[in-house]
Amino acid sequence: MQRPQASFLLSAPDQPGLVARFAGFFFDLGVNIVDSSNHASKVESDAKRFYMRIVIDLEGLAKPRALAVLGESTSRRTLEQAFGKLATELGATWSVGYSDVQEKIALLVTKESSCLYDLVLRQKQGELPCEIALVVSNHPTLEPVAEGFRLPFYTLPVNAETKRAQETQLLALLKKHHVTLVVLARYMQVLSDTFLAEAPPVINIHHGFLPAFQGAKPYHQAFERGVKLIGATAHYATKDLDEGPILEQDVARVHHGMGPEELVRVGRDVERVVLARAVRAHLERRVIVEGRRTIVL
Amino acid sequence: MQRPQASFLLSAPDQPGLVARFAGFFFDLGVNIVDSSNHASKVESDAKRFYMRIVIDLEGLAKPRALAVLGESTSRRTLEQAFGKLATELGATWSVGYSDVQEKIALLVTKESSCLYDLVLRQKQGELPCEIALVVSNHPTLEPVAEGFRLPFYTLPVNAETKRAQETQLLALLKKHHVTLVVLARYMQVLSDTFLAEAPPVINIHHGFLPAFQGAKPYHQAFERGVKLIGATAHYATKDLDEGPILEQDVARVHHGMGPEELVRVGRDVERVVLARAVRAHLERRVIVEGRRTIVL
Amino acid sequence: MQRPQASFLLSAPDQPGLVARFAGFFFDLGVNIVDSSNHASKVESDAKRFYMRIVIDLEGLAKPRALAVLGESTSRRTLEQAFGKLATELGATWSVGYSDVQEKIALLVTKESSCLYDLVLRQKQGELPCEIALVVSNHPTLEPVAEGFRLPFYTLPVNAETKRAQETQLLALLKKHHVTLVVLARYMQVLSDTFLAEAPPVINIHHGFLPAFQGAKPYHQAFERGVKLIGATAHYATKDLDEGPILEQDVARVHHGMGPEELVRVGRDVERVVLARAVRAHLERRVIVEGRRTIVL
Amino acid sequence: MQRPQASFLLSAPDQPGLVARFAGFFFDLGVNIVDSSNHASKVESDAKRFYMRIVIDLEGLAKPRALAVLGESTSRRTLEQAFGKLATELGATWSVGYSDVQEKIALLVTKESSCLYDLVLRQKQGELPCEIALVVSNHPTLEPVAEGFRLPFYTLPVNAETKRAQETQLLALLKKHHVTLVVLARYMQVLSDTFLAEAPPVINIHHGFLPAFQGAKPYHQAFERGVKLIGATAHYATKDLDEGPILEQDVARVHHGMGPEELVRVGRDVERVVLARAVRAHLERRVIVEGRRTIVL
Repeated sequence: MQRPQASFLLSAPDQPGLVARFAGFFFDLGVNIVDSSNHASKVESDAKRFYMRIVIDLEGLAKPRALAVLGESTSRRTLEQAFGKLATELGATWSVGYSDVQEKIALLVTKESSCLYDLVLRQKQGELPCEIALVVSNHPTLEPVAEGFRLPFYTLPVNAETKRAQETQLLALLKKHHVTLVVLARYMQVLSDTFLAEAPPVINIHHGFLPAFQGAKPYHQAFERGVKLIGATAHYATKDLDEGPILEQDVARVHHGMGPEELVRVGRDVERVVLARAVRAHLERRVIVEGRRTIVL
Repeated sequence: MQRPQASFLLSAPDQPGLVARFAGFFFDLGVNIVDSSNHASKVESDAKRFYMRIVIDLEGLAKPRALAVLGESTSRRTLEQAFGKLATELGATWSVGYSDVQEKIALLVTKESSCLYDLVLRQKQGELPCEIALVVSNHPTLEPVAEGFRLPFYTLPVNAETKRAQETQLLALLKKHHVTLVVLARYMQVLSDTFLAEAPPVINIHHGFLPAFQGAKPYHQAFERGVKLIGATAHYATKDLDEGPILEQDVARVHHGMGPEELVRVGRDVERVVLARAVRAHLERRVIVEGRRTIVL
Repeated sequence: MQRPQASFLLSAPDQPGLVARFAGFFFDLGVNIVDSSNHASKVESDAKRFYMRIVIDLEGLAKPRALAVLGESTSRRTLEQAFGKLATELGATWSVGYSDVQEKIALLVTKESSCLYDLVLRQKQGELPCEIALVVSNHPTLEPVAEGFRLPFYTLPVNAETKRAQETQLLALLKKHHVTLVVLARYMQVLSDTFLAEAPPVINIHHGFLPAFQGAKPYHQAFERGVKLIGATAHYATKDLDEGPILEQDVARVHHGMGPEELVRVGRDVERVVLARAVRAHLERRVIVEGRRTIVL
Repeated sequence: MQRPQASFLLSAPDQPGLVARFAGFFFDLGVNIVDSSNHASKVESDAKRFYMRIVIDLEGLAKPRALAVLGESTSRRTLEQAFGKLATELGATWSVGYSDVQEKIALLVTKESSCLYDLVLRQKQGELPCEIALVVSNHPTLEPVAEGFRLPFYTLPVNAETKRAQETQLLALLKKHHVTLVVLARYMQVLSDTFLAEAPPVINIHHGFLPAFQGAKPYHQAFERGVKLIGATAHYATKDLDEGPILEQDVARVHHGMGPEELVRVGRDVERVVLARAVRAHLERRVIVEGRRTIVL
């Protein structure tokens, strides 16, 4: 059994001494850094940024040295307050997660089972450190799959008129289940700006090598254009459709002998792997969004 | 020493018996088929097409059976006439090339030497069955490179006013050198529709995974968007910039730690390989253009 | 609904006119060739071989022309007899399959569910043209998975002493279910030569880039050696372990930051895709075994 | 013009506070860390190791704060002494390089020009931060290529009897030219243990996906075995042939239609890219050797 760990993820204006300051904070506490990585944006500009991910072994918190530094207690809350003070001083935005507090995620699907099965099976195999709190669909088709894995399944049908109401219901469900990440596992609906503004982060899988084939039927577009590679892109959903920060991409080689349906089949394999990698990176707290880009530490 | 071969490349409305008819033509002549491949378009439509590539050993032409079938002579011209008759009957368009008659190609460059060196060295190593008849540039920068390999080099400077005249000069040079393929090896100029209409086929390398990042500075666009893969696309130049039929594509993985210059460096490796594969496929007479797509047999 | 098709797969000593002869056979019958490809071995030797795959639309058999040629009947049996006559004349070995007669396959597993789920889900999605007749394991662990998909599941425990008897039982099961292909979907047992000699073809997935890391724990070997790519290989099982003809391979990039367990995780994704592609190629009757190699047409 | 930088590369027994201690060292000096990365070995064992790469901007050394800390001077030597003291305290082995002091490398070749051209052109384009001090071959074939780029070229013929003497000459040449890295760019000779013990680090490119096809003619072995991917491996040369720590690997897809010569051609493209990436990683001081593995930071 792995001992509890905390992962800090931060972004700050670049300045000398940042690695030493943040690493020193934990060293002074007598807390062991298990893993750390950092990156400074390389493009010359007025606003160079620094990014860092630090994973610590929480065991050190229990020792006298930590108590001596933190004062009255060594609770996670006290730790966060002390770290927050340093972060404020250095102008950093930050967040923290704990390995023994699993994120609860919601899977949104429509009728296609491929990505749903894939994510559920990976979660069961321990590849995705999270709890799948619920599955939501606008169609009842995949209910038996969810039930087979004993996952709560909600059908929320939607059309142009009911969209607003359906999204309100969906938001309520996410809140009720304490969901902190939504994964669109081939959910064939566009989410409104209002929804995205209120929802937790949303990861989408686009069945195309963005920004190439935006919009519908990308495989048919790819076929028409005779591309030699088929790709998939996992990105955060933003109000500009298919324009959100890219988390992960991959491709597979295709040839003229493959019709659109075969491109779909090859693409499905790429989609699954790309989506799983993206969700995993998010859950491992490796991803910082910077404008239209991501930094994956 | 390989014996002379002929490569036939054809496209016809799909209909029963095409493989048998075309293969039978050579069988009746007593001519050996060294390599053949064919493809029928899989998309249901009124106009299903059939594509075939047949490579024959010309030695068979010298035997009595060929003479008996072809009549008065077994020259390449007589062979072409006989094949042409069958093709007409079946509604096929076709072309033929001979392994002992090398295509003459022109390389168009500007200042960057990377693709120029690459193509010249591959030609010297026997990877590209052609003769590099001349190198043309709008700048004198790469003249020493061409001279080092004893290749004729022409500097044809160009600006908005002189464009028409320069292209006329260029066309004259291509004609004079009997050029049958033009390769834009990082030639940083857009060719006019008029030029393209009169010139032999033109292959361009686009430093981006088309149709994703069209236009200028694709690597900077890629960096801004945070893509995880960098690509390159070789395509025939058409009047719609970056919209010509795609010959070959490939990608390489990149990450957030790479600035735009490093994307350029990684991309350069992909470009070279993609361009070389595309030129080779064209020279081996494997490519049929069908609308906006290519069939690479 | 697709019309019934037949796929002929053949191998013959190379000689002039083979494409014409085989294609001509079907042309004369008035039967349409839907897809065909062929390959002649390129290595100079006394025994150059020719390989061909021909897919025909069986509808043509129903027309008068086919009857006129075949004589008394146009049954599949008559067709096979006529084709067999031609094949014998040309020294070819051959086989045929029909799109409306699905192969029955057996999945052999142990405790790991990943490949089992993957193959079952692909079969359900129509990616694998076959019927999964049964699942056999030496452990009862995966019985619920098989049951969830209503697949017959047999537990045949095995140890050194019972191996012979267990394999006899297994052979009886395969025979009873008319199995024509066995897929080792992470079956952690070595099959005896005796079994392999009597069983239908067996496809195995090796979690290593063969012939690199043979034997057990290839990911740990890969980690120790610091490889930068992780691979998987699907091959036909032969009496020489891990030496059978290779059907398909692929790799994924890894780095020093990944421990052996992460290599296992990355490898699992590669294994699944590689195994599925191999099984599909076999079921589509694209694979000819030639000594230690395969020709995948 | 980039300001001078220093790159420190170190390896130490893992222990709490290492990131803070090393980063703190430079922070206290008022020296800016431009880039840093670190890694702790993940395999549980008695001897967990920590690896770190720190790149600093040397400008900070010129400021009063550095002088105050370092004492009498802020020369590179004083900096190294101070860093060395800390490293000794923490049990670390380390090395340092300076961006304004280029490594001198020697290229060893035989007759094949492909890797030679590739490395020379990359060096000219600024991709490889080094000076190519000399080219050595056991054949005079490539002398004109070296001369074309004005590089010193030495022919040192070798056979079984002269091997010892030839290697002694080679070592003398390397010493005379102050060579710190030897690159075997398709040098078709095995170097003796004695040579390797006295020479600077040697990087070799193996035209095979190690540890798969060791020894000679790997592409022919690959063809015989019908592999579906062709690979290349760059590794440090050690006395166990083809067993040295792997720096970089890559593959390209091939198919049954390709004969051994085509595998060679495809492989050549992979080799060039893999060797260049490996040499670049070494020159950028990213590589730590740990037993039979490398850590590439």
